[in-house]
Amino acid sequence: MGKLNWGIIGGGEGSQIGPAHRLAAGLDRAFDFVAGALDHRAEEGRAFGRRMGLAADRAYGDWREMLESERGRADRVDLVTVATPNATHFEITKAFLEGGFHVLVEKPMTMTVAEGEELVGLARETGRICAVNYGYSGYALVRQMRAMVAAGDLGRVRMVVAEFAHGHHADAGDADNPRVRWRYDPAQAGVSAQFADCGIHALHMASFVIGQEVERLSADTVSCIESRVLEDDAQVNLRFDGGAVGRLWTSSIALGRQHGLTLQVFGEKGGLRWAQEQPNQLYWMPLGGRLEVIERGGPGLSPEATRASRVTVGHAEGMPLAFGNIYADLAEAIRARAEGRAIDPAADLYPRAEDGLRSMAAVFAVAESGKAEGAWVEARPPMMR
Amino acid sequence: MGKLNWGIIGGGEGSQIGPAHRLAAGLDRAFDFVAGALDHRAEEGRAFGRRMGLAADRAYGDWREMLESERGRADRVDLVTVATPNATHFEITKAFLEGGFHVLVEKPMTMTVAEGEELVGLARETGRICAVNYGYSGYALVRQMRAMVAAGDLGRVRMVVAEFAHGHHADAGDADNPRVRWRYDPAQAGVSAQFADCGIHALHMASFVIGQEVERLSADTVSCIESRVLEDDAQVNLRFDGGAVGRLWTSSIALGRQHGLTLQVFGEKGGLRWAQEQPNQLYWMPLGGRLEVIERGGPGLSPEATRASRVTVGHAEGMPLAFGNIYADLAEAIRARAEGRAIDPAADLYPRAEDGLRSMAAVFAVAESGKAEGAWVEARPPMMR
Amino acid sequence: MGKLNWGIIGGGEGSQIGPAHRLAAGLDRAFDFVAGALDHRAEEGRAFGRRMGLAADRAYGDWREMLESERGRADRVDLVTVATPNATHFEITKAFLEGGFHVLVEKPMTMTVAEGEELVGLARETGRICAVNYGYSGYALVRQMRAMVAAGDLGRVRMVVAEFAHGHHADAGDADNPRVRWRYDPAQAGVSAQFADCGIHALHMASFVIGQEVERLSADTVSCIESRVLEDDAQVNLRFDGGAVGRLWTSSIALGRQHGLTLQVFGEKGGLRWAQEQPNQLYWMPLGGRLEVIERGGPGLSPEATRASRVTVGHAEGMPLAFGNIYADLAEAIRARAEGRAIDPAADLYPRAEDGLRSMAAVFAVAESGKAEGAWVEARPPMMR
Amino acid sequence: MGKLNWGIIGGGEGSQIGPAHRLAAGLDRAFDFVAGALDHRAEEGRAFGRRMGLAADRAYGDWREMLESERGRADRVDLVTVATPNATHFEITKAFLEGGFHVLVEKPMTMTVAEGEELVGLARETGRICAVNYGYSGYALVRQMRAMVAAGDLGRVRMVVAEFAHGHHADAGDADNPRVRWRYDPAQAGVSAQFADCGIHALHMASFVIGQEVERLSADTVSCIESRVLEDDAQVNLRFDGGAVGRLWTSSIALGRQHGLTLQVFGEKGGLRWAQEQPNQLYWMPLGGRLEVIERGGPGLSPEATRASRVTVGHAEGMPLAFGNIYADLAEAIRARAEGRAIDPAADLYPRAEDGLRSMAAVFAVAESGKAEGAWVEARPPMMR
Ligand SMILES: NC(=O)c1ccc[n+]([C@@H]2O[C@H](COP(=O)([O-])OP(=O)(O)OC[C@H]3O[C@@H](n4cnc5c(N)ncnc54)[C@H](O)[C@@H]3O)[C@@H](O)[C@H]2O)c1
Ligand SMILES: NC(=O)c1ccc[n+]([C@@H]2O[C@H](COP(=O)([O-])OP(=O)(O)OC[C@H]3O[C@@H](n4cnc5c(N)ncnc54)[C@H](O)[C@@H]3O)[C@@H](O)[C@H]2O)c1
Ligand SMILES: NC(=O)c1ccc[n+]([C@@H]2O[C@H](COP(=O)([O-])OP(=O)(O)OC[C@H]3O[C@@H](n4cnc5c(N)ncnc54)[C@H](O)[C@@H]3O)[C@@H](O)[C@H]2O)c1
Ligand SMILES: NC(=O)c1ccc[n+]([C@@H]2O[C@H](COP(=O)([O-])OP(=O)(O)OC[C@H]3O[C@@H](n4cnc5c(N)ncnc54)[C@H](O)[C@@H]3O)[C@@H](O)[C@H]2O)c1
Repeated sequence: MGKLNWGIIGGGEGSQIGPAHRLAAGLDRAFDFVAGALDHRAEEGRAFGRRMGLAADRAYGDWREMLESERGRADRVDLVTVATPNATHFEITKAFLEGGFHVLVEKPMTMTVAEGEELVGLARETGRICAVNYGYSGYALVRQMRAMVAAGDLGRVRMVVAEFAHGHHADAGDADNPRVRWRYDPAQAGVSAQFADCGIHALHMASFVIGQEVERLSADTVSCIESRVLEDDAQVNLRFDGGAVGRLWTSSIALGRQHGLTLQVFGEKGGLRWAQEQPNQLYWMPLGGRLEVIERGGPGLSPEATRASRVTVGHAEGMPLAFGNIYADLAEAIRARAEGRAIDPAADLYPRAEDGLRSMAAVFAVAESGKAEGAWVEARPPMMR
Repeated sequence: MGKLNWGIIGGGEGSQIGPAHRLAAGLDRAFDFVAGALDHRAEEGRAFGRRMGLAADRAYGDWREMLESERGRADRVDLVTVATPNATHFEITKAFLEGGFHVLVEKPMTMTVAEGEELVGLARETGRICAVNYGYSGYALVRQMRAMVAAGDLGRVRMVVAEFAHGHHADAGDADNPRVRWRYDPAQAGVSAQFADCGIHALHMASFVIGQEVERLSADTVSCIESRVLEDDAQVNLRFDGGAVGRLWTSSIALGRQHGLTLQVFGEKGGLRWAQEQPNQLYWMPLGGRLEVIERGGPGLSPEATRASRVTVGHAEGMPLAFGNIYADLAEAIRARAEGRAIDPAADLYPRAEDGLRSMAAVFAVAESGKAEGAWVEARPPMMR
Repeated sequence: MGKLNWGIIGGGEGSQIGPAHRLAAGLDRAFDFVAGALDHRAEEGRAFGRRMGLAADRAYGDWREMLESERGRADRVDLVTVATPNATHFEITKAFLEGGFHVLVEKPMTMTVAEGEELVGLARETGRICAVNYGYSGYALVRQMRAMVAAGDLGRVRMVVAEFAHGHHADAGDADNPRVRWRYDPAQAGVSAQFADCGIHALHMASFVIGQEVERLSADTVSCIESRVLEDDAQVNLRFDGGAVGRLWTSSIALGRQHGLTLQVFGEKGGLRWAQEQPNQLYWMPLGGRLEVIERGGPGLSPEATRASRVTVGHAEGMPLAFGNIYADLAEAIRARAEGRAIDPAADLYPRAEDGLRSMAAVFAVAESGKAEGAWVEARPPMMR
Repeated sequence: MGKLNWGIIGGGEGSQIGPAHRLAAGLDRAFDFVAGALDHRAEEGRAFGRRMGLAADRAYGDWREMLESERGRADRVDLVTVATPNATHFEITKAFLEGGFHVLVEKPMTMTVAEGEELVGLARETGRICAVNYGYSGYALVRQMRAMVAAGDLGRVRMVVAEFAHGHHADAGDADNPRVRWRYDPAQAGVSAQFADCGIHALHMASFVIGQEVERLSADTVSCIESRVLEDDAQVNLRFDGGAVGRLWTSSIALGRQHGLTLQVFGEKGGLRWAQEQPNQLYWMPLGGRLEVIERGGPGLSPEATRASRVTVGHAEGMPLAFGNIYADLAEAIRARAEGRAIDPAADLYPRAEDGLRSMAAVFAVAESGKAEGAWVEARPPMMR
């Protein structure tokens, strides 16, 4: 199989996440960027596409146009990324899956659980990949944690503690800032703000690492800035299907924290600690032993972590490379299918529609529990109960 | 007024907390150690007292004997510390308060809320000091946080996040270890294990720093090691009387954490972060500014923090000195009374019977909520509602 | 101007630095990888080139062949990277400069000072870019330091302290490991091992940040592992032309340090501290103030640092992106020339032949001083005295 | 043997080091503070002594008076601390040794090497203890490092890297500040400023930990602030008698560093790293292994470290307790003599007159080498060559 072609919907000029996708998809020449409908304004999207190096006939003004055109091409894109605002994810993803394309959709995958179930069903029917961009799960040492849990290094996992708490929406003056305000407005953002935006990253990572899915949860949601309808801070307690207990804190008013995504896992035989802001070190405490620092790129790592590592030990790797690992997984998955061979198990780690669906179920459960004073509620989507 | 005399009940040879009290009480020669009933075994207590330098007639075999004898002396102890196991705190403290002594009692102050209310009443009636050893509140930078909140540097406090999560009871093999087992047995430990032992330190610190008291709470308590009846991990959500929201996590199975007492405070105008294991640095984030490191002993600290500091900036100070600050406060309080003058406000910070009582109410509230699937419950003692 | 074409000599399969160049050159689609002579074995080089996506006629077996062929093409490479072993840098770089190509050569640029002077002369004569890969100077916060010094934030710089000390050659058993042994053998490595390999990175960074060049130095070089002829540890004291004093420590036996490149700068009005292993934070101490943490991607950074930043604050960026910034600078330089416009000053920061030459002079000075018991020696190349 | 009595010369009201001595000597009731000549002004000294609790007849106005009086008492002080300005150390220490007292003298022990040799001789002749207050060597984890080296955990030590670099004299405006100015004036401070004040702590620690003494050294000394005659920054290269190489950097203009005393030791089989500002953690890298965090108070520590530890793991201990360990050593040494028994080897670690003498030789060697452009000079005192 030759080069892989890639296209994107959204991620136009000035968008937050567009540059990271372009960077990540192109890492190691995994994908060639050949097509896109980059902006909700047709002309701006076409012009920006041209500036980004797209051919004139593949710098589309609209995703429907792109779908129509790409569908008919022999050199059609092998993967489409959907990086538009949340409310459009479902419709666009659905259309491309039905059109026979593999899709990587941004989180949250959909706005409702029903939509999520539909996409899961569609991915199964069409046999197309429907991946979701929980990009932080691409970090080498996150994958190392998962491998250590899977290998039994921690014994049974008792507790997982996840945080995604930052302070970037701590300014009450932002009530009038349109880039912030819509996020806390249910008309635009749905049933949840901070949990739906950041909390699901932490929850996905917890599940990904411990290899268990959440069953029930109880949430305390608050709006620290009074003008907000949706929560800017939530504490969620969790029960996983493998018996683990979870604690998840997410906040956007935590002044002094820049990003604040961290994970701690405690098992019978050891504990792990990792933080996204210093992603090249993992702290490992074996029961009865001493705290050890596991370095990305160092010796003795799992195949999953080794594959996800690009530069030698001691050299920092960051988020764009983590993101790039999701694309690298997808490139491997697409090639393996094309070549009719099994996928490298160390690459078979990209988040799927099922993960996107579970997140949606968790978002609604958090909203429901938050309204019900923290009552414990079912957190699984209907089709997974 | 001359030297201050000090005595202790408990803290015998091999006890965990005894050495810290002896060290802390004697710091800066605040108190002279002159009397004690150090052990539940009369002979061992007397012998150890002699080895610690007590005069033969003040190395008592029993606290009742000590009470009787000291009561009659002109050079009676000015302060009595009660550092015996929890179940005996109430009885001993009560007896000494009634005997006219000032008391510093270890946490938890009592086993029930009713006992707590009785001690608060007694302290008020007798006019004696009944202090409780939330020793971590003696750290200079904890007092700096309190002063900054009080001065309005943070604006209104929105959220306080407290942790006291360690991994020292993570070994399931400890089911047979008597030093650990009793703690999780309701017959010996009461209604709560980890929250009553460690959680109340974190809760006191949160209240102390933000200057607000908890009103209601919801708790998720779990026993990660199945053989335990009482909880070894709890997540508690809190509402304070000044409007702040609280999140408190306490655990004894968090492998990789040595001590794990930390505090984060988020207000309208800034955020603070502090950790007991690196107590000489405080992280301060002013809204819209850059994270700053406030050093213990550095310039520009509050009078409270300056008073609580002994050595020059850059030299680590640790827990025994924090502890010592509680004793220094008490020495100042006792002297101020004796001299009929006002206490130095920067020293008027020792935790009181009221704090001990509030902790007991919180302990029972946590236990109640924990059993009721996290229902929100009243967390104030009856007399403070 | 359209896309930029890129080629590389060296960096074949299994090489250490090849993957980083391919990744960095392709970031943000700065350069298209279209040609290469990747291996000293013609067939392996061609085959690997094909696997990396090169067209059959541009996957060369030999750099002379590449030079000949590219020279004649209308779509010839716009930039050639030389990533072969040190002894070949001079010859290859010279040939490509003479052939009219822009070159990025790995460090050390040459094996002798005379060769370095020749390349400097050649670059001037031909008007071609001869850049040297001091890739760590591409980090956003390294550029921030430089900008702060240049803006006078520190006042006059008094002292710069640079380290590049790691522990990867601490195993005496490596005497028989061919990947390590040659480095300490003067027949293969020249006059210096650790200083020439790592020390010059630290020295370049010091000069780059303070905007001063070294004039004189005194070195203490030692071989901690006896079987080595060349040094595995060196302490170098420095005097810069702007009056700053420098201290530079480099080591390969410093067990416990993974990478160990750090910089501290002390001026009249403030101090800075940065470490390559945590490159997203810069510590800034204004005289009389408090230590502040400057975050990559945060507000208020210099144009140089902002341009060198790709993802939002709080997301780690690492070494491949730093490296990529050198390529981004070169792309801008090449485009600006082609378009006949001035280069963006925030991009005009790539290290040049002059820097490569200065490093060579420093390498020989360190070797000379090391042999002469630390005598102070001239550290400038003849043409710069 | 009963209680031990302690007295001090110097350390009057407002002095920098006095409070630390009083605190440290009294820790664990090691010594009773019973006598002192605390100030160079007789009346102030007597008054302050009274306020500190000394009896009227032992709050002396002058050290000669104190020597005379104490000499004649049955309950004479068991140990005298000399904490006066440097120039008076020799005379006072000599007088008290001759008077039959054990002495702990502040660093630097003397102003000249000859004086140092005289005190070493006198200590030997009189059989009295002449200890020197390298108080940082009292930290539990510093003693752990020493024990690990002695046990062979590192194999042969190749390199020791010590720093004592802070920024407290970085303000050029301090030229007129009397508390700073005298330090850089040879008339008052002798031949060296920063090395004599701080560098010798780092050097003592290096020797203490690796169990080797310095033989030769080469120094680069500079005055970053021009008005200073003596150095405010020095880099010293060292050769030890056991074959280790040393690098020592000391500075008082290193803005952003609060204290800056750190030690790194690199051996054939492992490396160690420790910093005074975070003294409760020690970083240990076994060759071929992973970096481990050794916690003060944790399991598996050496007897020396265990003895030097007071509170349980996870609770910070700081400098006053390290200091206190020197006093605890001295108390044990004095008791062992009195009781005619061998000293506990885990306590036999206090720095001696020999150490004070070696420091003086190093100070003069640094000054000499600094003037001679870093020439290598003999660093041992004549009597130890
Ligand atoms: N995985 C992550 O870590 C992460 C981080 C940030 C954002 N996101 C997600 O990425 C998505 C985009 O977020 P953002 O912050 O970049 O938003 P943004 O508002 O900055 O950019 C959205 C872009 O999409 C374009 N767009 C909108 N509607 C379009 C349409 N119908 N067709 C084509 N283009 C259209 C806009 O023109 C704009 O360029 C969101 O779903 C968000 O949740 C994910
Ligand atoms: N504030 C803190 O940070 C902190 C830390 C640890 C322990 N504590 C508290 O200190 C108290 C003691 O804890 P510990 O860990 O030292 O316990 P321990 O079991 O180690 O020691 C208890 C000591 O009390 C003595 N004792 C028991 N009954 C006595 C009696 N009737 N009269 C005299 N002496 C008696 C015992 O002989 C023993 O010496 C507890 O209440 C505990 O919660 C507080
Ligand atoms: N800037 C940095 O941070 C950094 C880091 C590592 C290495 N380097 C430098 O990069 C250079 C290469 O180092 P490395 O560690 O990758 O070496 P390496 O030995 O791992 O790889 C060298 C590669 O060059 C190829 N090669 C050798 N001679 C060749 C020739 N004549 N023509 C074509 N290809 C040839 C080899 O086949 C091999 O693929 C060195 O100069 C080194 O100093 C720089
Ligand atoms: N070991 C360490 O870490 C450390 C730290 C700081 C200072 N020191 C040393 O401690 C000594 C004192 O330093 P300092 O900073 O406290 O000085 P200081 O100037 O703050 O205090 C000196 C004290 O000594 C008193 N004094 C002076 N001459 C006297 C005399 N003849 N008789 C009695 N008292 C006299 C003064 O009145 C004053 O109270 C110095 O030698 C210094 O190097 C050691």
